[in-house]
Amino acid sequence: MITAEIIAVGSELLTPDRADTNSLWLTEKLNSIGIEVKLKTIVGDDDARLEETIRTALGRSRVVITTGGLGPTEDDRTRKVAARAMGRRLLLNEKVLEGIRAFFTRFGRTMPEINSRQAMVIEGAEILDNPNGTAPGMYIEHDNRSLALLPGPPREMRPMFESLVLPKLKAKTGGICVVRRSLRVAGMGESAVDERIAPVYTQYKNPQTTILFNRTEIEIHLTAEARTEQDAELLLDGLAGQIEERLGDAIFAFRGETMEQVVGLRLAVNGFTIAVAESCTGGLIAERLTDVPGSSSYFMEGVVAYSNDAKIRSLGVPAELIREHGAVSAPVAEAMARGIQARAGTDFGISVTGVAGPGGGTAEKPVGLIFIALADDAHTEHRKLMLPGDRQLIRWRASQAALDLLRRRLI
Amino acid sequence: MITAEIIAVGSELLTPDRADTNSLWLTEKLNSIGIEVKLKTIVGDDDARLEETIRTALGRSRVVITTGGLGPTEDDRTRKVAARAMGRRLLLNEKVLEGIRAFFTRFGRTMPEINSRQAMVIEGAEILDNPNGTAPGMYIEHDNRSLALLPGPPREMRPMFESLVLPKLKAKTGGICVVRRSLRVAGMGESAVDERIAPVYTQYKNPQTTILFNRTEIEIHLTAEARTEQDAELLLDGLAGQIEERLGDAIFAFRGETMEQVVGLRLAVNGFTIAVAESCTGGLIAERLTDVPGSSSYFMEGVVAYSNDAKIRSLGVPAELIREHGAVSAPVAEAMARGIQARAGTDFGISVTGVAGPGGGTAEKPVGLIFIALADDAHTEHRKLMLPGDRQLIRWRASQAALDLLRRRLI
Repeated sequence: MITAEIIAVGSELLTPDRADTNSLWLTEKLNSIGIEVKLKTIVGDDDARLEETIRTALGRSRVVITTGGLGPTEDDRTRKVAARAMGRRLLLNEKVLEGIRAFFTRFGRTMPEINSRQAMVIEGAEILDNPNGTAPGMYIEHDNRSLALLPGPPREMRPMFESLVLPKLKAKTGGICVVRRSLRVAGMGESAVDERIAPVYTQYKNPQTTILFNRTEIEIHLTAEARTEQDAELLLDGLAGQIEERLGDAIFAFRGETMEQVVGLRLAVNGFTIAVAESCTGGLIAERLTDVPGSSSYFMEGVVAYSNDAKIRSLGVPAELIREHGAVSAPVAEAMARGIQARAGTDFGISVTGVAGPGGGTAEKPVGLIFIALADDAHTEHRKLMLPGDRQLIRWRASQAALDLLRRRLI
Repeated sequence: MITAEIIAVGSELLTPDRADTNSLWLTEKLNSIGIEVKLKTIVGDDDARLEETIRTALGRSRVVITTGGLGPTEDDRTRKVAARAMGRRLLLNEKVLEGIRAFFTRFGRTMPEINSRQAMVIEGAEILDNPNGTAPGMYIEHDNRSLALLPGPPREMRPMFESLVLPKLKAKTGGICVVRRSLRVAGMGESAVDERIAPVYTQYKNPQTTILFNRTEIEIHLTAEARTEQDAELLLDGLAGQIEERLGDAIFAFRGETMEQVVGLRLAVNGFTIAVAESCTGGLIAERLTDVPGSSSYFMEGVVAYSNDAKIRSLGVPAELIREHGAVSAPVAEAMARGIQARAGTDFGISVTGVAGPGGGTAEKPVGLIFIALADDAHTEHRKLMLPGDRQLIRWRASQAALDLLRRRLI
C-alpha cells in the first residue's frame, strides 16, 4: 500500500484554538484511492523545523502533501523551504505572475507588489491553478516521491486537490478503489454491539470494520477495497446485511444519516405530521427536527414547557397529575405527548420530561432520570430512562431516545 | 522562550474521523507558563516513524510530550519505542505492577496478564501515577531535555499533566506567568472591529492581541505575560478597558462567556422572566437559553410555531396580519413576541420569523431574510436582518441576534 504524510503549515495551527482539519478531509480522499496516511505534522513559521519535516517525510513516504504557507506575506515560507529541502531553485514564473495580476483585475484592483512572491515556482514543479485564490499550488516528482504543495483555505485547497492531484495519485495506485460506509446504532451500548457483531466482522479482512463511540452513538465503519466501486459496494452490502441480521432495528442509518434525517424522511414519505412537547431538553428535539431542510412539511409545532404552569396551560396537563406524581413522571410525560398532539392536531406527539442537572436532583428523582412519551390518535406509550453524563449529554441522549421511539413506531 | 513539541500516538488519529484534541488542551497549559509549542506530530502504531519522531523532537526542543500508546495491548508502542529512541532499557517495575493489580481489585476483577506490560518502565524515568486508569505515565530528563509520556484518554491525561508535569516545567521557565482573556463581540463584522481597535492594540507587544472569526462571532484574544498572575491581569485590564471604549456595548463577554450565559445572568440578577416564540430557528433559542444550568428560574416557556396555524392558535397572531404581510414580516414578528409574552405572563417575549433556506425563498423574501422582535409590558420593537450563510448558520445567527437584542435591552 502506498503511504502518505500530511504537513500542515501555519503558526495559528499551534495555538490552543485551532485544530488542523484539512488533514481529515485529505485523509478521506487519500484512503478512497487506497493510500494510507502514516504521519501528520503541524509546524509553524519556522524554517528549520519545516525543512527538516519536509526532508524527513520525503525520505520515508511515497506521497507528501503540505497545506498552507503559500500566501503573499513574509510569514508564508512553504515555497522557499520546500525548494531548499529538495535542493532546487525558486524561479519567477511570468505566466503565474500574469495569472495573479488577472485575478486582481477581475475584482477591479491592482495587484499589490507583495503578491509577486506567489509567482515564485520551484524548479521542475508542475503549477496547480487556483481559480479560488491567488496562491497557485505545486506538484513535484522528486526521487520517486510525489510532493504536492497546496494552499491552506479549504475552499482553495479542496477543489485543487480533487481535480489536479487526486487523479495523478490514483494513476499510481493501480486503480484500487476504497469505499466506506457508516452504520449508526441507537439504544445499545458499545460492548453489547461488539459482542453481537464481532463473530461476523472478525471473519472479514475486507471489508474492514471499526466501531466508534461518538459522544452518544455507536458508529460502525465498514471499509471495502476492490478493483471497482461496484465491487466494493457489493462487499459492503454483504457484511452490512449480516450486521443488520444481528442488530436489527437498533441500526437507524446505513449511510451515515442523522437520526433527525431518518425520522424526517419517514414522516415525509408517509405524509405524517409531528408536534413536540419538551421540558428538560428545552427545545433541542424541535431544533434537531427543524434542522433538516424541508421539515416544515411535517413539523408543525413545538412547546418548551419548563414551568409547571406552562405544562398545565399550554399542554393541558391536569394540575392534579403534577401534584400527585410530580412533573418528572410517566403520567405527566404521557399527558404532555397527548396534549401537544391534540393541540397541534398532528398524527404524532412526542414529549420529554426529566432532570438534566446539575441541580434539581433528589434521591427519588436523581439527575439523569428521564421520561419520554409518544402519542397518536390510538394510544400513548412511555419509556423511563436513567441517562449518565453531564447536562448537555443527558439532554442530547434524551432527545435521541425520544426521536428513536418515534422512529421505531414508524417502521 | 522554552520550546515544546507534542506527539500524539495512535492509528485512530490518522483516520478521517478523529482529530487530535489533546494537543489543544496541552498547548493552552504550556502557553500559560510561557512555553511555546513549535511542532505537533500525529503518528500511528509504526515503530520506525515513532522512534524517528521522538528522536528528532528531543534533538531540537526543550520539552517533548507524548500522548497515547501506553495501553496494555500489542498496539501500544510508546513505552518500548521511546526507550529505544533514548537508548535506555525497559524494566519491569514491581511497585507499578502492584498498583495495576490493586486498580483491578478495587473494581472486583483480576488483572488480565496482558496488563503487566503497563508495568514496564523506562530506566531512570520518574513514574507518574494514574488514579483514573491503569497506564502510569513517565517523566524523563534526558540530555537536558524533558520528556513526558502521558496516556491518551483526556480524563487520565489531564489530571496527570496538571498535577505532576506542569509544576516541573514551571520550575524551568523562571516563573513567567501568561494569562489569556477572551472578549466576544456581537453585531459587528471582523474588519469593522479591527478598524476600530487596531490603533489601540498595535501599540502593545504585551498583551498580545489576536482577532478570531469563530463561525459567527468575533473573538478578541488578549495574552499577557508577567512575573505574577496579578500583574498579567492588570495588563489585561488596561488593554481590555481601552478596547471597551472603542467597541462599547458590542462586547458582550469579557471572560469568554457565551451569549446565553450573559443573557441568563442578567435575567437572573434582575429577577426577570422570559418566553420565546420561534419560527425559522425551530427551538434553537429555547435550546440555547435552557442549556445554562439554573435557567428554569427565568425561562418559562417556548413555542416553535412553524405552521401559520400554530402562529395563530398558539401565539394569537391575527390571521389577517399573516394574510396581509406574510408570516415573514415585521408585524408578525412583533405579534409573535407580544403573543408569547402575554400567554406565558413573563417580563419579556422574544420572537424570530424568517427564511432559513435552502428552499422557501422568493425575490421579495429571499433566503436569509429574518425579523426578530422583543416585547415587554410597555412596548415592542423589531429588527430586520439579511443574514448570509447556509441554513444552520442563518439559524444560529438569527438566534444570536435575538438574544443580543434582549441583552442590549437589559443593560
